[in-house]
Amino acid sequence: MGREIRVIHYGVGPIGAGIARLLLEKPNVRIVGAIDIDPAKVGQDLGFLIGSGRGLGVTISDRLNSVLRTGADVVVHCTSSRLCDVEEQLFQCIDSRISVVSTCEELVYPFHRYPELSDRLDRAARAGRVAILGAGVNPGFLMDRLVLTLASACQRVDTITAKRIVDAKERRLPLQKKVGAGLSPDEFSARVASGEIKHHGLPESIAMIADSLDLRLEEIQETIEPAIADAEVCTEFLKVQPGEVAGIKQTARGRKGDKEIIRLELDIYVGASEPRDEVQIGGLPDLHCSFPGGLHGDLATAAIVVNSISPLLEAAPGLRTLRDLPVSYFTGRASGECFPRRSEGRRVGRIPLVGGGG
Amino acid sequence: MGREIRVIHYGVGPIGAGIARLLLEKPNVRIVGAIDIDPAKVGQDLGFLIGSGRGLGVTISDRLNSVLRTGADVVVHCTSSRLCDVEEQLFQCIDSRISVVSTCEELVYPFHRYPELSDRLDRAARAGRVAILGAGVNPGFLMDRLVLTLASACQRVDTITAKRIVDAKERRLPLQKKVGAGLSPDEFSARVASGEIKHHGLPESIAMIADSLDLRLEEIQETIEPAIADAEVCTEFLKVQPGEVAGIKQTARGRKGDKEIIRLELDIYVGASEPRDEVQIGGLPDLHCSFPGGLHGDLATAAIVVNSISPLLEAAPGLRTLRDLPVSYFTGRASGECFPRRSEGRRVGRIPLVGGGG
Repeated sequence: MGREIRVIHYGVGPIGAGIARLLLEKPNVRIVGAIDIDPAKVGQDLGFLIGSGRGLGVTISDRLNSVLRTGADVVVHCTSSRLCDVEEQLFQCIDSRISVVSTCEELVYPFHRYPELSDRLDRAARAGRVAILGAGVNPGFLMDRLVLTLASACQRVDTITAKRIVDAKERRLPLQKKVGAGLSPDEFSARVASGEIKHHGLPESIAMIADSLDLRLEEIQETIEPAIADAEVCTEFLKVQPGEVAGIKQTARGRKGDKEIIRLELDIYVGASEPRDEVQIGGLPDLHCSFPGGLHGDLATAAIVVNSISPLLEAAPGLRTLRDLPVSYFTGRASGECFPRRSEGRRVGRIPLVGGGG
Repeated sequence: MGREIRVIHYGVGPIGAGIARLLLEKPNVRIVGAIDIDPAKVGQDLGFLIGSGRGLGVTISDRLNSVLRTGADVVVHCTSSRLCDVEEQLFQCIDSRISVVSTCEELVYPFHRYPELSDRLDRAARAGRVAILGAGVNPGFLMDRLVLTLASACQRVDTITAKRIVDAKERRLPLQKKVGAGLSPDEFSARVASGEIKHHGLPESIAMIADSLDLRLEEIQETIEPAIADAEVCTEFLKVQPGEVAGIKQTARGRKGDKEIIRLELDIYVGASEPRDEVQIGGLPDLHCSFPGGLHGDLATAAIVVNSISPLLEAAPGLRTLRDLPVSYFTGRASGECFPRRSEGRRVGRIPLVGGGG
């Protein structure tokens, strides 16, 4: 049995609650504190709030500093998508000498949008001897880490296209609203202009790929268009009429001169047909990878966050990315380790090999 | 510009030659020696032998020790599939304090088949302050590292199936012969029994997955069957009649009790329809990943070997695996580094972000 990992849970929205439920299933994990600023949640027991059906003896508090003072190995942080909105929260965790894994999309690869802030986060984490990481399925996995994993089997990479098509019909109401389902095209445009409708993270994925493959892009461009319903779509929660907005079509492009080197497309709308994830690399060899149906975003994000905890706790102090950490799956085995990282044959029982015709 | 990486090339068969050609394209790489025991190759210039069309001033030698004495950062080793056949070659490299990346399939995850030898290799590498790695597309990537990358997006993994279907028709003659194309079923069985026909590495992939996901398998079983042609198949090199062997169908299974937890299938035969690679994970979420057409084995193996050199040279001394190393793509940038591993924002020029509607 490995050492117990003490977790403070920061932010109990839908994603945060899903992560907390997964943490409860993992051996050697103990949630020792929970933070949320929503008055409706403060004072409740985390276990009941996340629907685990039992109390955990952990009361939601809005007093960050007093919770952080209880001490922990890692804060699981799930409050907001934009790094500038959460930087003070992150510094408070780091300054309390607690490592952080966050679902903040812009933290997944913050070096281009926030070069100075990235540097300050890195220095603060090093000073506190802790590590900080942004993690999730997109950005963090489908359009960046997975792309780089595939690129490691290529001799040459010329172009990269990744496409994620999500049918929001079967997803939770906040997601349907977040992508503008049911709005008029004008309302949609207004909310895009105000920054209210936007998936965060595509440029971060492009930057991670470009730096890693030394693609020397000159510009990253992003556009947001509405997906317009051409027939009525009914979900459990709302109805979209023909001509109304069904959701979002967002595209980010990485350019070098007049050549488009990387294109990432994200379509999330109710009634999207053939939902799937796809990655195409043009190079040597060409490579085409497809996930029919697509990855379930909420489930995968919770998995990626929890699976990253062990390597994060073993990482060098500082601002880390999913690209830097070894691939991992949380087993709870050994001293906070996910894999027997050092390939220690003695630690794994030898599995008898039979057959093979030889 | 990064530091020059000095490479000794050990084994100039088809795979080795492909790797050497790729090395020649990479910045900051210099091939300083070449070894092969084939009398027809000894004395030739490596550059002409691998078809690069130019001399490199590197003469193939069969005298391992004198080549190793010239010194290098890494030996690229491509001689044989079975670890027991190459262990002395590997120890000689390690004892010369040169790191090794090898295409030896059984070295990709040797801890179960060769626990004692793995331990000796690890100790020798640590003593010499060098690292040793087995690398390739299968084993090494498709059925293990990629599977684990996908598993990192899963909350729970119950079963894993990976399938690789290769049409050997378009591939080189040695591969067609290696899988028995054109043999009678009886000849095929005899060559399977003698160990002559066999793809090496499926149990190694199963062991890597099982250890990493803590699946606690009780047995790994492997079977080899012929793919029988039901119609005539002509390749550039040979003709297979109906009823003759077209190639190999090899399956490895990892079992726990009477449950099959992992199944890896490899079909390589001339005329195989719908060549592809597939990975399926049964768990939460279920995950299905498909590569229509499949990865080109020789190209991908050369890429994976070359792309692993930089992280290998930065790894802790000892016996490493592709699972342990960060994902990488050889750019030749910086001091033998593939990625700006420490996420140093200052090192990468900020790419202007435009648009985004916000």
